[in-house]
Amino acid sequence: MKVANLVGSRFKERPADCVIDSHALMVRGGYIKYVSNGIFSEFPTMRRVTRKIEEIIRQEMDAIDGQEVLFPVVLPADLWDESGRYESVGSELLRFTDRNKARMVLGMTHEEAAVQLVRDYAQSYTKYPFMIYQLQRKFRDEARPRAGMIRVREFTMKDAYSFHTSQEDLEAYYKVCYDAYNRIFRRAGAPEVITVASDSGMMGGNLSHEYMLLTPVGEDSIVICESCDYRANMEAAANHMVNENNEATAELSCVETPHCKTIEAVCDFLKSDVKNSCKAVVYQKNSDDKFVVAFVRGDYEVNETKLRNLVGEDIHAADITENDPLVAGYIGPFGLSEEVEYYIDVTLKNIGNLVAGANKEGYHYTGLNLERELGNVEYVDITKVKEGNVCPCCGKKTITIKRGIEVGNIFQLGTKYTKSMNMTYVDENGKQQYPIMGCYGIGVGRLAASICEAHHDEYGPIWPISIAPWEIEICCLRVDDEETKKVADDLYAKMSASGADVIYDDREGVRPGAMFSDADLIGAPIRIVVSPRNLKDNVVEVKTRDKSVDVTVPVDQAMEYVRDLREKLFQAIAEA
Amino acid sequence: MKVANLVGSRFKERPADCVIDSHALMVRGGYIKYVSNGIFSEFPTMRRVTRKIEEIIRQEMDAIDGQEVLFPVVLPADLWDESGRYESVGSELLRFTDRNKARMVLGMTHEEAAVQLVRDYAQSYTKYPFMIYQLQRKFRDEARPRAGMIRVREFTMKDAYSFHTSQEDLEAYYKVCYDAYNRIFRRAGAPEVITVASDSGMMGGNLSHEYMLLTPVGEDSIVICESCDYRANMEAAANHMVNENNEATAELSCVETPHCKTIEAVCDFLKSDVKNSCKAVVYQKNSDDKFVVAFVRGDYEVNETKLRNLVGEDIHAADITENDPLVAGYIGPFGLSEEVEYYIDVTLKNIGNLVAGANKEGYHYTGLNLERELGNVEYVDITKVKEGNVCPCCGKKTITIKRGIEVGNIFQLGTKYTKSMNMTYVDENGKQQYPIMGCYGIGVGRLAASICEAHHDEYGPIWPISIAPWEIEICCLRVDDEETKKVADDLYAKMSASGADVIYDDREGVRPGAMFSDADLIGAPIRIVVSPRNLKDNVVEVKTRDKSVDVTVPVDQAMEYVRDLREKLFQAIAEA
Repeated sequence: MKVANLVGSRFKERPADCVIDSHALMVRGGYIKYVSNGIFSEFPTMRRVTRKIEEIIRQEMDAIDGQEVLFPVVLPADLWDESGRYESVGSELLRFTDRNKARMVLGMTHEEAAVQLVRDYAQSYTKYPFMIYQLQRKFRDEARPRAGMIRVREFTMKDAYSFHTSQEDLEAYYKVCYDAYNRIFRRAGAPEVITVASDSGMMGGNLSHEYMLLTPVGEDSIVICESCDYRANMEAAANHMVNENNEATAELSCVETPHCKTIEAVCDFLKSDVKNSCKAVVYQKNSDDKFVVAFVRGDYEVNETKLRNLVGEDIHAADITENDPLVAGYIGPFGLSEEVEYYIDVTLKNIGNLVAGANKEGYHYTGLNLERELGNVEYVDITKVKEGNVCPCCGKKTITIKRGIEVGNIFQLGTKYTKSMNMTYVDENGKQQYPIMGCYGIGVGRLAASICEAHHDEYGPIWPISIAPWEIEICCLRVDDEETKKVADDLYAKMSASGADVIYDDREGVRPGAMFSDADLIGAPIRIVVSPRNLKDNVVEVKTRDKSVDVTVPVDQAMEYVRDLREKLFQAIAEA
Repeated sequence: MKVANLVGSRFKERPADCVIDSHALMVRGGYIKYVSNGIFSEFPTMRRVTRKIEEIIRQEMDAIDGQEVLFPVVLPADLWDESGRYESVGSELLRFTDRNKARMVLGMTHEEAAVQLVRDYAQSYTKYPFMIYQLQRKFRDEARPRAGMIRVREFTMKDAYSFHTSQEDLEAYYKVCYDAYNRIFRRAGAPEVITVASDSGMMGGNLSHEYMLLTPVGEDSIVICESCDYRANMEAAANHMVNENNEATAELSCVETPHCKTIEAVCDFLKSDVKNSCKAVVYQKNSDDKFVVAFVRGDYEVNETKLRNLVGEDIHAADITENDPLVAGYIGPFGLSEEVEYYIDVTLKNIGNLVAGANKEGYHYTGLNLERELGNVEYVDITKVKEGNVCPCCGKKTITIKRGIEVGNIFQLGTKYTKSMNMTYVDENGKQQYPIMGCYGIGVGRLAASICEAHHDEYGPIWPISIAPWEIEICCLRVDDEETKKVADDLYAKMSASGADVIYDDREGVRPGAMFSDADLIGAPIRIVVSPRNLKDNVVEVKTRDKSVDVTVPVDQAMEYVRDLREKLFQAIAEA
């Protein structure tokens, strides 16, 4: 391939609508083209990256006995009725009707299709375990697509589904897949991907892990212990924060706090530390709009995922009116209407003297002691973890919070789908059983963009050699110089003939600066520069995109040098 | 891979809903799974076939300088507004709205997306020519999906788009692509694919060819000359039928033909040869419902595509009422109301004495001579060609009609899309021009099914080695026999280690008959049978699925023999 023929434009200016670097570089480098909100086409340069990623994934899935299948993008709604997700999933599931008014959906994930494919096949325990996977387009009608290929509506995903006859067997295979995923990310050149325990949310089921690529622009918060192996995403992270045992030294008194509608304003007015305050955050249940109040320490945020799991159903931010049994802005745990369901967070434990709402317009309590005032208090965990908190694993105050992009996830689904879709098998004893499922996903385009985000400089992506659009780029700096052109042409011809993955820039009238800018955007890990100046010494320049190598090599040794360098770069990835 | 672990069931009974053999075999062999009308999942066995086809296509597209891209499945309607196809295409284009009520479509073909991808890039003549292609899912909301994977609603398609600055350059590349397509079908093991000239229909543009796999179950009629190279699909085939010059020997007379509403009934009643009759077929224009009458010889059918092209707009079968200027059942060219637009087909030329409707209830003319009665008659070509007709190319009466399945097509699109979507470039003289496009499609699943249709026996598919799910199957006939198991295991281990594409049947308790039935359905071209009986002579059986080879080979030579046989089978395909 010659740069002169490569479809896709490269340019210097950062597009105004690109918030993160990888998005900007992928637009500037001719990788992707905006088609519609959250929908992109891939130019040839991008397609080469995604194909290499797809191939690594395929190899690793095949290596753990995965069998590649293909499910449709367009699925009948009745399959999603069976699982209950036609109703339960929100508007990110795109629903429509076909020409015969049959209800259809666009597959955003394929648990239903997987069960439908194998439920006739796998009716005997002798067929288990097995794993099927596909690489297929998916559509999720995201409310807010963003960050280029990071959060899109249509994307290519590798999704895998395993079927087992026991929880132990699922767990054993889950571990195998967990390791395969680590190999995939390492081979794709992203050793900065870490695994974190996660809340499995909509997918149902039990244990799950997310694979997070750490980067400050990530949209997920990850809780990491600096002294042990503990990692969890914010939704799932347990808050083991402990207050020092404070004595109740003050008496309960109801004080006027005019115009103080936020906990900060109240503490400011009362000159009290916000850490000694009790904040009320009010929700309503989706099913019947009944109120649920979360009481947390003033400086903590509610973790809605944990609260939702505790309440046992979906909740939304409350809309309090004058007729309701709650006094907005002055809600506290003492003297609260008995009609109202409430939870008290662990962050409030062992605080001797609290500031809290008095459930009376314009008044707060000071000197409130939860045990003294309420009797037996049950503390629950419904807050988001903060930096410096106690690690739930090792008990040290070494919790840090980092940002990451979720590039993969694995779930232990249990029997959620096999039960709802009535998939059964006959076990050794002739008894009908529901198979136990696991599912395993990787977003291909998102992984490419994330690696670009983690590996770039201001000039372009610094692709790992395993997924770079081309491994090698030859730049011929002076096409009009006969000798230079001849040496460069010759190198390109020989390398192509040897099967090397090489792109050649022999454009006329392009100055070295512009040629190097383009090469930086294409991001081939190895660059060979052929110029009249170097040819005087009968050498070419060989550089790596990450600047770790920058040497001159005799022309007749260039092929061999580059072959070795290529091996070393692959080796470095394998050892990372 | 072991047959014991292969996901997908095989069974003997032909499913009642399968009309054609390939559909039945693909269901019986665990290749495909019905999901919804015209929508299937691919089991691992099928996915291996389609992946091999995809890889052949990729290689041949890359070899003619194609650059792989990826367009979205879900496209914004505004792109299709630009081309005009949002309005002009029927309900096979699936239209829907997303969560924000934005109008979207499912891509059934990607001309619009291709132009959108490159119109910013290719603004100078120096960027041309180029070709981009993708392998992507498509959705066409077919009214009548049928025949398994032959006519579906969702399918994987390779679609390619080339862009040129002159018609000559397009034609040169069109020829290159024409040859690449022939290589693809030959490499996929389908030398029975022929090219035919076609009507380009909805795609717009000029010259186009279809690649037809000849099979009696095909839904397309193909017109082939047995003495020259002429081939066309029925829609596009010119009818050069010639009547012997018949003198007008009778006088025009109007005769009563009571209750004779069809041309056959009339001819029967008048004891006249239907070849001397003039049949009227009535249509209405879609735009204003005005009548269009096609007069053709009684034994010919109207070719609606040709008539539509002549009329210049879409037409539909007429609904004639009493108030209309037409007497249903008695319509003829003489004495027809002047309000009515009509066409007289070449099949009526040179007939001396015709039977034709008298435009009067219950009456026909006999002895009608078109030139004598109407004066100057303009004959047009609006009939379907029949067997034995005159070839428009060589002039011999050697036309035959065959059935085929369209497995690919290539179109010279011209500027239909670049003009409507305002894609321009600046030419050598600084002038704005519209690029000229070609487009090139292959349906992957349909090709797989068509090859199965052309290459099977009653027991299963006889896959060409290039696209077979596995090239080799090892059958261990007696797993309970230690020596047999050891030899088979050993062969499987060695072959796998050498990179061979092999599947191994070592299932316990499966009788040889059942094992062979399964092997027939899997259709691996080479089968190695390891049995106690043969091992007495220290040999294994090696057979080909097409029965052309059936030998015994010493155990220690089996690897080498099979390696050579494999080479020969590939060689045979290359030479076909």
